[in-house]
Amino acid sequence: MQEIASSQNKLFKRYKSLLQKKYREEEHLFLLEGKRYVDTAIQSGSKVDSVIFSKVTWEIEKNKEYYLTMSNVVILSDELFKELVQTEQSQGIIGVISFESHLCDLSEADFKTGKDILLLDRLQDPGNLGTIIRTADATGIEHIILMKGTVDPFNPKVLRSTAGSILNVKFIFVESVIETIEVLHSKGFNVIATALEEALDYDTETIYHQQNCLIIGNEANGISEILLDACDVRVKLPIIGLAESLNASVAAGVMMYKLLSVKRMRIF
Amino acid sequence: MQEIASSQNKLFKRYKSLLQKKYREEEHLFLLEGKRYVDTAIQSGSKVDSVIFSKVTWEIEKNKEYYLTMSNVVILSDELFKELVQTEQSQGIIGVISFESHLCDLSEADFKTGKDILLLDRLQDPGNLGTIIRTADATGIEHIILMKGTVDPFNPKVLRSTAGSILNVKFIFVESVIETIEVLHSKGFNVIATALEEALDYDTETIYHQQNCLIIGNEANGISEILLDACDVRVKLPIIGLAESLNASVAAGVMMYKLLSVKRMRIF
Repeated sequence: MQEIASSQNKLFKRYKSLLQKKYREEEHLFLLEGKRYVDTAIQSGSKVDSVIFSKVTWEIEKNKEYYLTMSNVVILSDELFKELVQTEQSQGIIGVISFESHLCDLSEADFKTGKDILLLDRLQDPGNLGTIIRTADATGIEHIILMKGTVDPFNPKVLRSTAGSILNVKFIFVESVIETIEVLHSKGFNVIATALEEALDYDTETIYHQQNCLIIGNEANGISEILLDACDVRVKLPIIGLAESLNASVAAGVMMYKLLSVKRMRIF
Repeated sequence: MQEIASSQNKLFKRYKSLLQKKYREEEHLFLLEGKRYVDTAIQSGSKVDSVIFSKVTWEIEKNKEYYLTMSNVVILSDELFKELVQTEQSQGIIGVISFESHLCDLSEADFKTGKDILLLDRLQDPGNLGTIIRTADATGIEHIILMKGTVDPFNPKVLRSTAGSILNVKFIFVESVIETIEVLHSKGFNVIATALEEALDYDTETIYHQQNCLIIGNEANGISEILLDACDVRVKLPIIGLAESLNASVAAGVMMYKLLSVKRMRIF
């Protein structure tokens, strides 16, 4: 256990650097706020580098022994702790978690038969990405492919919107559209792109196969042309009012629940 | 047309006060950013009190005559304009719009046969409310009842998330749960509450009638007990992963698209 009260402390500086993507990628670590999520990370076998408490929280913590046994505990003065947190009502506890168990390679991913996956094409809004991760978890999706240019899933704003679901999914970072679709096809995925034009109504049940990869595009520009050309089918959600489009996380949510419904209704 | 460069100007102060709920309610006006939305407001017959331009935007505006004919035009120095806007990339135009055509009383609302409506029970997050308004518009819902304690729909953060759909729906503010449900029943609505417990799976098609009122609850506490007791049926979205709940705007979106699908599939 270690107590830190100086902003010049090396370890504190290291933790603070993890608020930036560059250093998260260097260290392969991210900061996860909230007691419940930190406990889940410890219990679910995530590699936890350390658990950081604010001084005031540590003083009233009832399970000190537990944390001291399970992890490397660091106590920060309340002032320093505030520099690490994004939420106004912080619970005074942050897990420093390794990327390791939350990333995998496309070629080595253990896709399970009958399980759908997501591919996010340059999604930009952290709130949208976090919300999509939360809905993916809810609907049983375990793998999320992130096309280069998508916001970092370990960004603190994304983490907050995931409501802990960050721990229940695996990310696959990819750069090449063509290679990615080839691998997905070789693994038997039906690749479905959401689009506004030249697309089948999402209630057309023949769209869905046993194992689908659902693509969600960039908020402003949708899915790239090259990805649209490579997909197996384009699908659209009907808009009967005056709205021009849907929020990306809502469109993704409606589609993920559609995939789940189809799966529950029939055996392929 | 009027040009303003002093922050002490009375009219500027009046506009600035509209960033606060208290003054919006006093004046029955709200500020809507963005050229497309201001144009829509003018064309769709919203009562537009005035159109505010930043000086730089007015100078390059090609349709000066149009705005001068259609509305009271006010030019603010770029510095003053910035004080009114919430978005970083502002388009330099704001409509000052009257609540009037966007509010109605529960007893006088022109509910149309076969049209569903929403009831939001103390929803707190501006982004969630805006996104729900956008999806409501997309799925053909025109009336949204807001239970006392729900975030103000004319809050700038809500407006941004609606992506212009604020102009396509009508709000009904209510205080009494019992009276509201009585009126809804007298008008033939089937009142559906989303809940996590003691609820039917949302894929149970008999849940849905010709005309439904869908209730979405507070992000942290869900729907109040009294409202749950007064509704006709409780419905839940299945969660098969480890997520404990869904984001409110995603849950609302999935349910609104379910209502739309049911409506498209059969004639009641």
